[in-house]
Amino acid sequence: MRQSTLETHGAGAIRSEGVDRSVDASADVDALAVDTIRFLAADMVEQANSGHPGMPMGAAAMAWTLFSRHLKHDPADPDWPDRDRFVLSAGHGSALQYALLHLFGYDLPMHELRAFRRIGSRTPGHPEHGHTPGVETTTGPLGQGLANAVGMALAERMLAAEFPEVVEHHTYAIVGDGCLMEGISHEAASLAGHLGLGRLTVLWDDNRITIDGGVDLACSDDVLARFEAYGWHVLPVADGTDVDAIDAALTAAKADPRPSFLAVRTVIGRGAPGIEGTPKAHGSPLGETALSAAKARAGWHHPAFAVPEPVRDRCLSLAAVGTARRREWEHRLTQLSLADPARGREWDRRLAGALPSDWHQFLTDTRAAMCAGPRDARATRIWSRQVLEAMQHKLPELVGGSADLAGSTGVDTGFPVVRRDDWAGRAIPFGVREFAMAAVLNGLSLHGGFRVFGSTFAVFSDYLRPALRLSALMRQPVIYVLTHDSVAVGEDGPTHQPVEHLESLRLIPGVRVFRPANGLETLTAWTLALEHRSGPSVIALSRQALPALSACAPTEDRRLRVVHVEEALKQDASRAPDVEFLATGSEVGLAVEAAKLLDAQGLHCRVRSVLERDALLETERDARLTVSVEAGVTAGWHRFAGLCLGVDEFGLSGPGPDVLRVLDLTPEAVAAKVLERWVGRARPDAPPVTT
Amino acid sequence: MRQSTLETHGAGAIRSEGVDRSVDASADVDALAVDTIRFLAADMVEQANSGHPGMPMGAAAMAWTLFSRHLKHDPADPDWPDRDRFVLSAGHGSALQYALLHLFGYDLPMHELRAFRRIGSRTPGHPEHGHTPGVETTTGPLGQGLANAVGMALAERMLAAEFPEVVEHHTYAIVGDGCLMEGISHEAASLAGHLGLGRLTVLWDDNRITIDGGVDLACSDDVLARFEAYGWHVLPVADGTDVDAIDAALTAAKADPRPSFLAVRTVIGRGAPGIEGTPKAHGSPLGETALSAAKARAGWHHPAFAVPEPVRDRCLSLAAVGTARRREWEHRLTQLSLADPARGREWDRRLAGALPSDWHQFLTDTRAAMCAGPRDARATRIWSRQVLEAMQHKLPELVGGSADLAGSTGVDTGFPVVRRDDWAGRAIPFGVREFAMAAVLNGLSLHGGFRVFGSTFAVFSDYLRPALRLSALMRQPVIYVLTHDSVAVGEDGPTHQPVEHLESLRLIPGVRVFRPANGLETLTAWTLALEHRSGPSVIALSRQALPALSACAPTEDRRLRVVHVEEALKQDASRAPDVEFLATGSEVGLAVEAAKLLDAQGLHCRVRSVLERDALLETERDARLTVSVEAGVTAGWHRFAGLCLGVDEFGLSGPGPDVLRVLDLTPEAVAAKVLERWVGRARPDAPPVTT
Repeated sequence: MRQSTLETHGAGAIRSEGVDRSVDASADVDALAVDTIRFLAADMVEQANSGHPGMPMGAAAMAWTLFSRHLKHDPADPDWPDRDRFVLSAGHGSALQYALLHLFGYDLPMHELRAFRRIGSRTPGHPEHGHTPGVETTTGPLGQGLANAVGMALAERMLAAEFPEVVEHHTYAIVGDGCLMEGISHEAASLAGHLGLGRLTVLWDDNRITIDGGVDLACSDDVLARFEAYGWHVLPVADGTDVDAIDAALTAAKADPRPSFLAVRTVIGRGAPGIEGTPKAHGSPLGETALSAAKARAGWHHPAFAVPEPVRDRCLSLAAVGTARRREWEHRLTQLSLADPARGREWDRRLAGALPSDWHQFLTDTRAAMCAGPRDARATRIWSRQVLEAMQHKLPELVGGSADLAGSTGVDTGFPVVRRDDWAGRAIPFGVREFAMAAVLNGLSLHGGFRVFGSTFAVFSDYLRPALRLSALMRQPVIYVLTHDSVAVGEDGPTHQPVEHLESLRLIPGVRVFRPANGLETLTAWTLALEHRSGPSVIALSRQALPALSACAPTEDRRLRVVHVEEALKQDASRAPDVEFLATGSEVGLAVEAAKLLDAQGLHCRVRSVLERDALLETERDARLTVSVEAGVTAGWHRFAGLCLGVDEFGLSGPGPDVLRVLDLTPEAVAAKVLERWVGRARPDAPPVTT
Repeated sequence: MRQSTLETHGAGAIRSEGVDRSVDASADVDALAVDTIRFLAADMVEQANSGHPGMPMGAAAMAWTLFSRHLKHDPADPDWPDRDRFVLSAGHGSALQYALLHLFGYDLPMHELRAFRRIGSRTPGHPEHGHTPGVETTTGPLGQGLANAVGMALAERMLAAEFPEVVEHHTYAIVGDGCLMEGISHEAASLAGHLGLGRLTVLWDDNRITIDGGVDLACSDDVLARFEAYGWHVLPVADGTDVDAIDAALTAAKADPRPSFLAVRTVIGRGAPGIEGTPKAHGSPLGETALSAAKARAGWHHPAFAVPEPVRDRCLSLAAVGTARRREWEHRLTQLSLADPARGREWDRRLAGALPSDWHQFLTDTRAAMCAGPRDARATRIWSRQVLEAMQHKLPELVGGSADLAGSTGVDTGFPVVRRDDWAGRAIPFGVREFAMAAVLNGLSLHGGFRVFGSTFAVFSDYLRPALRLSALMRQPVIYVLTHDSVAVGEDGPTHQPVEHLESLRLIPGVRVFRPANGLETLTAWTLALEHRSGPSVIALSRQALPALSACAPTEDRRLRVVHVEEALKQDASRAPDVEFLATGSEVGLAVEAAKLLDAQGLHCRVRSVLERDALLETERDARLTVSVEAGVTAGWHRFAGLCLGVDEFGLSGPGPDVLRVLDLTPEAVAAKVLERWVGRARPDAPPVTT
């Protein structure tokens, strides 16, 4: 029996830094604790009649070793900024994490474990950040947890560069075969190796089983060689039940300056007869028979959901050690504040994610400076660089980078690049790795202390979409700067021309999509994105120059602006217009030009610049005909407009203006379509054609 | 000067299998050809004032070596099934490919090169399949070309298992640093290594430059070690201008049973003074000064767009060799057809992508068998397994697999698995690699001879979205089986519950999204998907059992079915209903139950099962109130319904029925919302409330 390995270990071998286990130093407690975790997890799945028992039963020993001998945490304060971070990238093993959190005294009482996977419980099917104390990130979509951990480890180094007295912790992740097969594991591991994130340790639950069968059905990678190729420190642990071996490997990991990868050989569903080591152990309850047999084989004679006293005691004493370490840290923080009160306040502000107290003055000044500046035609990506640079000078916490398009997307604001052993930079070189970029940004944001942004071309938002969805689900205020935001990109052709992307991003619950039409709207977009603390924002920016349209007066709803086209048209702004254009970004100027043509035909027009479409939900529309214009798919606009003009097909390669002409995005084509609809539908005696 | 390497090579060293270069065997022609390609590409970019000269100037020698000494192709017949496939994964280097295609006599005359990146030309900014003869796949979104090539190499082996006499070719890809940083490169290379695709050779344009700077800014991978870890044969080529060294490496690659990875060291923008070897060479014209200087340095005294006679002659004689090989192959195909006419016809059918002549009889029989079978409540994913199994028995070309969810998604139809050295299987073990799965499916489909499908959970369509977009752009009939298609997934929680996904897939131009409500609609969905040859289809399937609702009579438009709820309600089906429900998939049963409740309130209801929403564009709606019901975001339904019921927020973890209750997806909640709207808006004298 594999468990025997545990039983032969003397307590003398068990030592790790900073943790005093003298309260109960016997190895028996280790073995007992591992079984406690295994059977708590299996009981949870059994009770819910749903879930994944195999991973917790196989990986309990490594998780226990990590939590009991290495992890610096205080269950009484799950938000302690200097805690070690633990990420269960193999999120389907959530029962493992819940069992550990419960044992160590997080606010996750036994009745929560019993309510596993029920509505209203703190124990959802996959770990959800913000839902369960101690859960650092939401996992389940495979591979992303690993990249989140890379982001957390990066955040630790970057924050330590600013506040070395109070930042010094480690990041751990448990990953499965699925995580490692996913492409994001490559992107994230390559980036971590490049940056030399030595405080990151990844434990691979090497159980050689996937849902469809053995890993060897689909994968023959030499995983250790692969991680070595990324510049990682790699270590095999031959027996995943050997607490001391895992302990030793974790100690070696911390000592090595490179990120460490521990390949821990385990058995999925360990101890369940007829099931262990097979795919059957993965995603279904063991069943009463097999679970009873597993308990009998382990000599486990407790009722379901049992925690033996020695295990409870050991965990609580370890938790007390964590509390003591946190108190010691708080003392250090107090010292810091006393020595330099301004710096202490800045730490507090940074960790609270608050904007500086003179934020509004800063905005007023920035706005004034922009109004005083030149009003030439300029791409919003260029305006955005100017705004971002000012914001970054104001906010030291504002860090980010690009997936190898820093210059093109206007995030090359001149701040130094983050490098291995030089973490004081502000520009993160993500490389051509959109997906990892977004997931690393999630990790940075979750860690705390930073406001983060990442950029790429809008069309490549598809590459990072799964992580953007998790930004939204976790309500992380990650800012996505997506430029080259329409077919006006031109020559690069349909592979580089977003068509469906803005609309598809609007569909993700909780994602705010801003598409500014000029410099001041770009400032507003950045402002709203930074003031929005409970979810991600997308700022969509043009490649091409846009005309300077703005009046400088702020408007009542910052998300919606009436462009002062009436002035140009010399019409009566007080009367309800015949035609109202709802336009975004680069199409605001187009709508203005179309409105001028329609004005010549005697139609009274209004043009609204729709910085954020959600604002329209709260707006009365009084025009006889509402026309939306956006150089993208029209599907989502039918709710707001009777005539929806856009691009419902792929674009094509050619100079931008030619492409727009082919796709009918010219003032003449727009005016003609509006006129055709006006003549056909909007008779003076008909009700308003708003939808 | 780097070029000197070329000049010193004697013709004697240049030999490769099957290609007779006796017409002009001097190495001078090699050097001349490489310069011709370099300057054609640079001239194209210069003329367009847009494009990427750096990659072609650096990689011309490797591409020339491949095309002149190894590639089996016949420019006179770009669709020759047994040609070698060439993929420019670094698609921004399109000018390189166009120059080669032109030189070898593909139907790409010089005026097309001069019209580079103009509308209407055959030389768009990035290579587009179907647009330019000889372009095997659309590239530009980085990394996907590599995965396409893996799919093509897999297709070659699988088709050779069936038709060994007429299938024996190689697949080549040129990839850049960007391709290799992308996660999909990991997934694709790992799969290729696992499957041992020995006829695949990848040439890495190792120029150490990315857009933001040196590769070392963001990446420290040991790329060769990485590919070795995947089980690839790896070879460095120290000098990317050394035609013989590249030739030797390509020869060694073909001799090795593993897929081969050639790291060819190059200089981006080679020969352009002040620009070569820097990011400046990547994405902008060199400018007249630098281009002139580069030409002078190379001793190139021709006007723009020049092709020296010896180069033209060499290329045409090589093309003639290709034509001869193709004719020899056609002879073999004729032999095959003569020996076994049925097999010959089957080859023709397979390569034409046509369905068998008795297809409609097969459908009729299958439908009858399903109608005669049990009508129990069943998940559509279960129905789909039954349908797919029948389809696969009927269609030997129907192959596919799952990203490690074969059983859960119902694609485990019992056909043997494709394995290294055993290619006769029909089930492809994609592993936990959604993105590569989709891009490999694109490659299989592009290769010809197969109809392909891939499956995963609907929520993870985000992981493969960039490749699905390319299925659509390339009009490839890839079938995506996406199961667990709503929040009814239940316990796994919001990370596994699609909400925005179906709608977001509908947004991609050319993607057909089917969501069947029962067994027969599932059959219809598969039928429509297989009969649709010019683009991808999504079949969205439920995890949970759905009630058997169908009448067995086929309907006029197969995409839209009126559910015979009237019968149950004993109402007059001929009069226009008060309320028409537009429901999809699992919500059809829900709408029927809601309709029954409303019937009890005196409202005459009709329920339409909307298998494919596009069908609604062609349908008159005569009800006083139209109500859409789909367990996903409502954004796209406002065009079709006055009341849109769905899920505009993330789901939650809990048993499926509980989740549906919380999200108001019960007959009672739906009926109440309809009634509320009816009372509020649909007065008898009001016009129809259709939107």
